[in-house]
Amino acid sequence: MAVPQLSQQSASGKSMFFTSDNWAGAHPRICEHLDRVAAGFSPAYGTSDFDNDVARRFSEIFEKEVAVFFVGTGTAANSLSLASIQRPGGAVFCHTEAHVVEDECGAPEFFSGMKMVPVHGPSGRMDIAELRTAMAAFPQDAVHHGRAAAITVTQATEMGTVYSLDEIEAIGQIARDGGVALHMDGARFANALAALDTTPAEMTWRRGVDVLSFGATKNGCWCAEAIVFFNPVFATDMPFIRKRAAQLFSKSRFIAAQFDAYLADDLWLKLAGHANRMADRLRRGLAATSSARLAWETVTNEVFAIVPRVQAEAAIAKGARFYDWPVPAAMKDQVSNTETLIRLVTSFATTEEQVEALLSALK
Amino acid sequence: MAVPQLSQQSASGKSMFFTSDNWAGAHPRICEHLDRVAAGFSPAYGTSDFDNDVARRFSEIFEKEVAVFFVGTGTAANSLSLASIQRPGGAVFCHTEAHVVEDECGAPEFFSGMKMVPVHGPSGRMDIAELRTAMAAFPQDAVHHGRAAAITVTQATEMGTVYSLDEIEAIGQIARDGGVALHMDGARFANALAALDTTPAEMTWRRGVDVLSFGATKNGCWCAEAIVFFNPVFATDMPFIRKRAAQLFSKSRFIAAQFDAYLADDLWLKLAGHANRMADRLRRGLAATSSARLAWETVTNEVFAIVPRVQAEAAIAKGARFYDWPVPAAMKDQVSNTETLIRLVTSFATTEEQVEALLSALK
Amino acid sequence: MAVPQLSQQSASGKSMFFTSDNWAGAHPRICEHLDRVAAGFSPAYGTSDFDNDVARRFSEIFEKEVAVFFVGTGTAANSLSLASIQRPGGAVFCHTEAHVVEDECGAPEFFSGMKMVPVHGPSGRMDIAELRTAMAAFPQDAVHHGRAAAITVTQATEMGTVYSLDEIEAIGQIARDGGVALHMDGARFANALAALDTTPAEMTWRRGVDVLSFGATKNGCWCAEAIVFFNPVFATDMPFIRKRAAQLFSKSRFIAAQFDAYLADDLWLKLAGHANRMADRLRRGLAATSSARLAWETVTNEVFAIVPRVQAEAAIAKGARFYDWPVPAAMKDQVSNTETLIRLVTSFATTEEQVEALLSALK
Amino acid sequence: MAVPQLSQQSASGKSMFFTSDNWAGAHPRICEHLDRVAAGFSPAYGTSDFDNDVARRFSEIFEKEVAVFFVGTGTAANSLSLASIQRPGGAVFCHTEAHVVEDECGAPEFFSGMKMVPVHGPSGRMDIAELRTAMAAFPQDAVHHGRAAAITVTQATEMGTVYSLDEIEAIGQIARDGGVALHMDGARFANALAALDTTPAEMTWRRGVDVLSFGATKNGCWCAEAIVFFNPVFATDMPFIRKRAAQLFSKSRFIAAQFDAYLADDLWLKLAGHANRMADRLRRGLAATSSARLAWETVTNEVFAIVPRVQAEAAIAKGARFYDWPVPAAMKDQVSNTETLIRLVTSFATTEEQVEALLSALK
Repeated sequence: MAVPQLSQQSASGKSMFFTSDNWAGAHPRICEHLDRVAAGFSPAYGTSDFDNDVARRFSEIFEKEVAVFFVGTGTAANSLSLASIQRPGGAVFCHTEAHVVEDECGAPEFFSGMKMVPVHGPSGRMDIAELRTAMAAFPQDAVHHGRAAAITVTQATEMGTVYSLDEIEAIGQIARDGGVALHMDGARFANALAALDTTPAEMTWRRGVDVLSFGATKNGCWCAEAIVFFNPVFATDMPFIRKRAAQLFSKSRFIAAQFDAYLADDLWLKLAGHANRMADRLRRGLAATSSARLAWETVTNEVFAIVPRVQAEAAIAKGARFYDWPVPAAMKDQVSNTETLIRLVTSFATTEEQVEALLSALK
Repeated sequence: MAVPQLSQQSASGKSMFFTSDNWAGAHPRICEHLDRVAAGFSPAYGTSDFDNDVARRFSEIFEKEVAVFFVGTGTAANSLSLASIQRPGGAVFCHTEAHVVEDECGAPEFFSGMKMVPVHGPSGRMDIAELRTAMAAFPQDAVHHGRAAAITVTQATEMGTVYSLDEIEAIGQIARDGGVALHMDGARFANALAALDTTPAEMTWRRGVDVLSFGATKNGCWCAEAIVFFNPVFATDMPFIRKRAAQLFSKSRFIAAQFDAYLADDLWLKLAGHANRMADRLRRGLAATSSARLAWETVTNEVFAIVPRVQAEAAIAKGARFYDWPVPAAMKDQVSNTETLIRLVTSFATTEEQVEALLSALK
Repeated sequence: MAVPQLSQQSASGKSMFFTSDNWAGAHPRICEHLDRVAAGFSPAYGTSDFDNDVARRFSEIFEKEVAVFFVGTGTAANSLSLASIQRPGGAVFCHTEAHVVEDECGAPEFFSGMKMVPVHGPSGRMDIAELRTAMAAFPQDAVHHGRAAAITVTQATEMGTVYSLDEIEAIGQIARDGGVALHMDGARFANALAALDTTPAEMTWRRGVDVLSFGATKNGCWCAEAIVFFNPVFATDMPFIRKRAAQLFSKSRFIAAQFDAYLADDLWLKLAGHANRMADRLRRGLAATSSARLAWETVTNEVFAIVPRVQAEAAIAKGARFYDWPVPAAMKDQVSNTETLIRLVTSFATTEEQVEALLSALK
Repeated sequence: MAVPQLSQQSASGKSMFFTSDNWAGAHPRICEHLDRVAAGFSPAYGTSDFDNDVARRFSEIFEKEVAVFFVGTGTAANSLSLASIQRPGGAVFCHTEAHVVEDECGAPEFFSGMKMVPVHGPSGRMDIAELRTAMAAFPQDAVHHGRAAAITVTQATEMGTVYSLDEIEAIGQIARDGGVALHMDGARFANALAALDTTPAEMTWRRGVDVLSFGATKNGCWCAEAIVFFNPVFATDMPFIRKRAAQLFSKSRFIAAQFDAYLADDLWLKLAGHANRMADRLRRGLAATSSARLAWETVTNEVFAIVPRVQAEAAIAKGARFYDWPVPAAMKDQVSNTETLIRLVTSFATTEEQVEALLSALK
């Protein structure tokens, strides 16, 4: 066993990794807690008192009795959530850029047997009118075309924005009116919560959310995702759906432990707040330069900027890492041939020094 | 966050947990290494140099270029292995007590679309003649009945025994003759290897194994399973099969790290050897008593014993934990009404003191 | 277009086809009615008044409001029936020789996502005690092993026998006690009904059957199968399940027409009665010979006989056609090496002359 | 059994059914041939000489050795075609209005496990440039997003148009360049062939088509669809895929018989030619009126016209039947609020008198 050669440093000795929040590792308090539960014996498959205690924390946090199921990946959380609310011939409405339709290799369709129907909307948010129109094409008796079965919103969105509470409420109303379930992909739930400065209850079931993918992996854990049911009816089959999906971990207490540390002392909110602040610092830094401009306003831990291509390449040469992002159709004429749209993601592990190093490299 | 209340101790202060090896936690060297990789940034989804380095370790260990895919659970390793060698209308031959057919809630069928065909045999091993007979009923043109597609052997078996190298070779020959793939469920691979005192290569591809579920979770890791392809043809679709199955972990380096520490300095073999020795000590202790007797010979980390029911209950009252095991049909007349068959599992974490405590409690 | 060269005659000019009732064609009254509906226009996909009228006939016949769905094959009827009563991680209990587990290439598992659990029993009927035992191994909280979801009985069975009304009632009670659904595979429903001399209602829902595969193909139609729901709850999703399964026929009226003629003037019962009588004649003929003996008593349109192998071969040389049948394990010592077990199936199209020709050929 | 009350006549005694070609029945020569094969006995499940003879006809017609599989519905033909060329994580490119994505309730996704990616293009044909762009987003290593696996073209399209031979060739080239298979949904294959006045070979494999759904149901049969493989590699698993999909008919000779009559003496081309001519007559009649105008040019058996809403309603009141059709986005400003877009479908059974009656009713 060698010392692992992670990419933690650039050649210059400065870390400038803004590729994704899943390039970060795990927070020390998560690690410490994992070490703590590593000793001794404990009932397997999530049946220990410890697992149950941690699961109960979710009911406190959400101010409501909820059913909680731990799984290993965000894709699993989304896919099994949708499987739990599936209808044969069902359609799931999501934003065109949603992770479920763009980045999960068909897992949501595979597990739920449903099809994803993309709905346009600016800045990663479904347009309410477009959503209504899309759903109208899938009435409950549409045997040939398929019927509406669920709506899924991503909070925070793939573009770093958030749905306002009113928007969630409106979508929740559309779901109720249409007799379908509302799922929230909360891979960056904490970042959205911090940005909106609201409570978990307000951002979910009080606005009509039935099932939530509660992600912790991107925000300081290494493998901790929870499916949270606000509507117990949908949870009935989940023990079997999860096991059949190979997502019931034998040493489940290690997921529980991550959540235990994550939720304690508001660590999760602090980490998300930090990531958001780092993004804000980056945003302000970019806004202050003459050559870069923000592609759209984001309020969480992702910044999208339009920069001269040469500048982006120079930054990469200096050790910076980030992804180019496809230019949305509606913005094509705002980005010149010599420019590129880049995505910069901060995380709990991003430091002010790293932000400054990037800003400097991008100049 | 409270100190987790794990079941690490009995009321008497003595730990006597022999329920399963997945009741153990994680070995300190695994934990230390997880902590080590927790800092810094690293490419996600298994694409970092570190992930690749660890994957390459498997080629050294197996003395052959292999393709390796990390997943999160043993059920995933088995199910996706079978999915990679699937044939529409295919049948998979396994022992009647195999994990894939008894304990995975239909996951192998769900992911592979194939049916499990149970084959009898004593002590957890398929009888070679029965396997031939079973396969003969599924010729390659059996459109109605289904066709043979794979054989899966569990090494070590669910009953603590192992297939000898000759037996694996014979089954490998049957697979080749039938034109089907051979999969090995190695959830307790290290325990079998230690028991047979052979090499990974000898126990697998040199005997005809095409795909292996290489389990590390039960033997000191907390979440580390690898699918190992000796035949690269079968690996072609696996990147997509794994992602669609929600088994591609974003912070995959944490699985890699577990394997890195697990495979370093033969830790895996030492831990398995220890577990086997603890089982042997337990076995000898039971054999020395007048009231208990061994149900069958086991050579790995599981001991099956027939004990008076009152004695078993007394031990439980003293804090011992273990499972009753269904009496195999062929043994019905060897177990009286006042007796029970119990399974006792040791692990890397089992101590001599715990073994003695259990022996004492069972007296 | 040539005159189709069907195998309707042996070399000797005598037809002796006892291979299966699906080797027969279609009854003239079925054909005439198909011709009748061929002209003109009619709403597609089963929405015409004619389709609805025929569907309503089932409610009369079963003396209860039922939901009816036409499909194209018996495998579809069984598989979609099971899909409609599926539970994730569910187990379906059937006889070891049942069509769903032996002859449908995994279609029931494919469509329902459930596993088939074979239950032994003599003469094609599940043993009640064995059924209870089998179900006890799949309690509703068995997340690892799977949970009971349905029982399926074949009436008449694959071995030409029938469950008595009391037996169906007993199985219906087991289903209710276990909280699972009861499905009946009625591929030879009419033959069973004729043999028991009872009513459709008595043989189904009054004994606890929830869903029925009502087969007409083997008994004079060429492509007419209906899924009949006695419990409307299970029918809710069926329109979508059927369409997604590619079993909604655009010119559905042609299936309706077959059923219309089939059910009119008790044609279906007359045809089944005829087939049963032909089998009885065959049975009596065989019993009267010295060399053949009946393998077990059958009461419908299938006769199983043990005959000297040379005699069977001689009959085949004379143009007779039938299948060898695997000797059940319990009968191994009753069939000598020089003998073979053969299955002889009669149908609506079988004539007395054909029966006599076969008896003569087998002498 | 009553005389079936089909909707063959309007109140006025004139039949004006232009809803769909699947509202028609079956051609007399199809019916006669079905009657012919109804007598006698024949091996089941498509294994008779007759079945094989008919299957061989396809090799003659396509001037190439092809593998042919009969199934019961067009949805089955499409879905199983795609299942035979599936790749895990695969994407199938089709027109936005294609039947596979709009009208089959997710069956293609259900059977193939792949996702449909809609590609825009005028008049029901994928735009070549858009197809290239769409495919470029699914490269073969796109584990997250998914990889291209197949293209499917509908010939004739859902909008009554056809791809020219050059267009098929261009798409075939894109398929080869991208390493994916090309499927053709030929639910109205004969209508397209008649319109293009070409040969089956020229319209398919000579232009790069690998698999064809050869539909006969809409054009004079009642239940006859064939999957035709030009590339034998893709056919390997089809016997099992078909059986597991519940699409292997026991009395398969009745499907064979339909094809036998359909293909004999060019009946299929004559029927399609007739339907196309009736559409042309209708088209010319509409063009000659002042109030109706053609929505776009069609060359097969579907006419799309924009008519005043009051006129459409008046025609319906007189007994005419047809569907409103959604106005394509690109045409929104060409259809006023008082107008409606209607689809008029002719078939082999449409008569000149019916066309004149409709024209008259629409005036």
